[in-house]
Amino acid sequence: MKFTVERAVLIKALAHVQSVVERRNTIPILANVLLSAEEGVLRLTATDMEIAVVEEVPGVQVVRPGRTTAPAATLYEIVRKLPEGARVELDHGGGEAPLKLRAGRFHTDLAVLPVEDFPSMTEGKLPHRFALGAGQVRDLVDRTRFAISTEETRYYLNGIYLHAVDSDGAKKLRAVATDGHRLARFQEDLPEGAGGIPGVIVPRKTVVELRKLAEETQEPVEVHLSETKIRFDLGSVHLTSKLIDGTFPEYDRVIPRGNDKVLRVKKKEFAEAVGRVAAISSERSRPVKLSLDRNRLLLSASSAEQGQAEEELDAEVVRYEAAPIEIGFQARYLNDITDQIGDEVEFRFADGSAPTLVMDAEKPEALYVLMPMRV
Amino acid sequence: MKFTVERAVLIKALAHVQSVVERRNTIPILANVLLSAEEGVLRLTATDMEIAVVEEVPGVQVVRPGRTTAPAATLYEIVRKLPEGARVELDHGGGEAPLKLRAGRFHTDLAVLPVEDFPSMTEGKLPHRFALGAGQVRDLVDRTRFAISTEETRYYLNGIYLHAVDSDGAKKLRAVATDGHRLARFQEDLPEGAGGIPGVIVPRKTVVELRKLAEETQEPVEVHLSETKIRFDLGSVHLTSKLIDGTFPEYDRVIPRGNDKVLRVKKKEFAEAVGRVAAISSERSRPVKLSLDRNRLLLSASSAEQGQAEEELDAEVVRYEAAPIEIGFQARYLNDITDQIGDEVEFRFADGSAPTLVMDAEKPEALYVLMPMRV
Repeated sequence: MKFTVERAVLIKALAHVQSVVERRNTIPILANVLLSAEEGVLRLTATDMEIAVVEEVPGVQVVRPGRTTAPAATLYEIVRKLPEGARVELDHGGGEAPLKLRAGRFHTDLAVLPVEDFPSMTEGKLPHRFALGAGQVRDLVDRTRFAISTEETRYYLNGIYLHAVDSDGAKKLRAVATDGHRLARFQEDLPEGAGGIPGVIVPRKTVVELRKLAEETQEPVEVHLSETKIRFDLGSVHLTSKLIDGTFPEYDRVIPRGNDKVLRVKKKEFAEAVGRVAAISSERSRPVKLSLDRNRLLLSASSAEQGQAEEELDAEVVRYEAAPIEIGFQARYLNDITDQIGDEVEFRFADGSAPTLVMDAEKPEALYVLMPMRV
Repeated sequence: MKFTVERAVLIKALAHVQSVVERRNTIPILANVLLSAEEGVLRLTATDMEIAVVEEVPGVQVVRPGRTTAPAATLYEIVRKLPEGARVELDHGGGEAPLKLRAGRFHTDLAVLPVEDFPSMTEGKLPHRFALGAGQVRDLVDRTRFAISTEETRYYLNGIYLHAVDSDGAKKLRAVATDGHRLARFQEDLPEGAGGIPGVIVPRKTVVELRKLAEETQEPVEVHLSETKIRFDLGSVHLTSKLIDGTFPEYDRVIPRGNDKVLRVKKKEFAEAVGRVAAISSERSRPVKLSLDRNRLLLSASSAEQGQAEEELDAEVVRYEAAPIEIGFQARYLNDITDQIGDEVEFRFADGSAPTLVMDAEKPEALYVLMPMRV
């Protein structure tokens, strides 16, 4: 194998693939990237056995086709440190011979591992196929991923549940995440081809990688899936992932229906006041109390050691016509939700101890459920 | 005590003082900032018993003079989260009553601790006094602090040794730091008043705080010191620190005098090549070998697992006329030094195993000694 490529092109592809490589892993081959040069095209592959990224690199001059594997992090680090505009030559004589990298007067021999040992994750049929806009992918991820559980014992909550539903007669593609304290649900119109998909749980790490890749593109994202695997095609980058083998809970049951006490509050003023009031407490789970009365919201918090704080929001930013209510939430959970909301937040309360519905007043496709905490 | 102050003014002063407060400390009063309002002036003080920062805050409207102490981190966090342009009122009724902070519709009661419990560090005479330009302070710190030892057992190396010397007949103020592997020495013309100062070791944390404060000013920095304490006055901010109670080694003995093999190399090309070649190794103490021959420098490094790398620099950037030599250094140590050097680096070698002198070719007041490592 021998080819030359612009540093800038190689670096971008290496950044994508090395991102899935686990820093600490006990299987040496998983630290490597598979380089595969064919006529006019270079393909880079990295995997952690749960996810694989394959990227086709354009603008490569292939002198001699071939394949090998080399340490991903080291290769990335070296290419990053080459001078801007450098042309990089990679040359592998085959077998156990080192991979020779040359750029100007710099030269390195990188240890390789056999291509045969590199695990393949990209096999198997993915019968379902649909396309989403890159913006849709970003929305589906951003508005739900903060609620993904980090508790490893509840592995079936360690991802985003993606599935097709009938929502008030309209067909939707829905993303849901929950950690038991809060739930986030977002939906888009069901894309063509997604009608018959099984409900699948996409793992957190895949979600993170997908989000990074979706940031770089405006092109549609093609999604291919089966009951056990999903693949996202973003132009020349292909992200394949195993799905979480578990049953996502029947989340619909925890979405309250009858909450009739409606608060509408301007997002910016509310979120900032929550942050200020919560600053009194240095606990991670800083609780904030909302005391509601006619068009008036008093936010308060206290800490045994530091004291207490409060701020009143009134009719300028608050609309509330229902009976008075007091209810407490984790400040961070409130802010995670308001971060995803535009100008106005709508809360729907039942009482001070029941799950509360939170929505973007202008975007009904986003819906959040928040469990109160005692304050 | 009662006063009002602009948020922006208060935040700047709180940022300075809260920076010396230790996040984790077992003595509650040390988590607090001392607020002292007199006619027309507010003074903030924080200390960790080794360092104290006192800052006079301008533009404060003092309604009722007085003093109290409140949690520094919480106060800073709250003030930071107040809206831009807010006017902050602080009101303390005396004794154990909470400190009341008001800004718009936000209000907090902060727990206080008695002023009498707040340790004073600012007493004692500081008989020596001189002034340095803010730029001189930045230089003295920047060109030496990377060599400060982090080994706690060698506490006498955990700071910068500041002292007056006769250097080739000229009087200089000198800063030296070493960790036993490398030594950094920088000097300025001796300022008036610094002639009779004792040699003092300024602790690392003090150096860090001083550097931050020196970044914000162009005004001269007044230095006051005794054998046990030092104070830096930077406008309205006063940084007082205990000095390290130990004897700095006779560093002059480790500065080689007879090194006659002189290498001059362009800094940028050299530093970048060192970084690239060292990238082959993932060890923290990445060694790089320099092989010198007439106007030619070969940099090389290797790693048992990853392979090896090399880069040649030649007469375009290298001037070397002496006998061939091979010598190894830690890549990070080389780059720590070149980071502080302008366009051209001058090395003076004795042989492949002896301490090497490194200098800024255009700035003889900076001098570095580097121990080689076996490669």
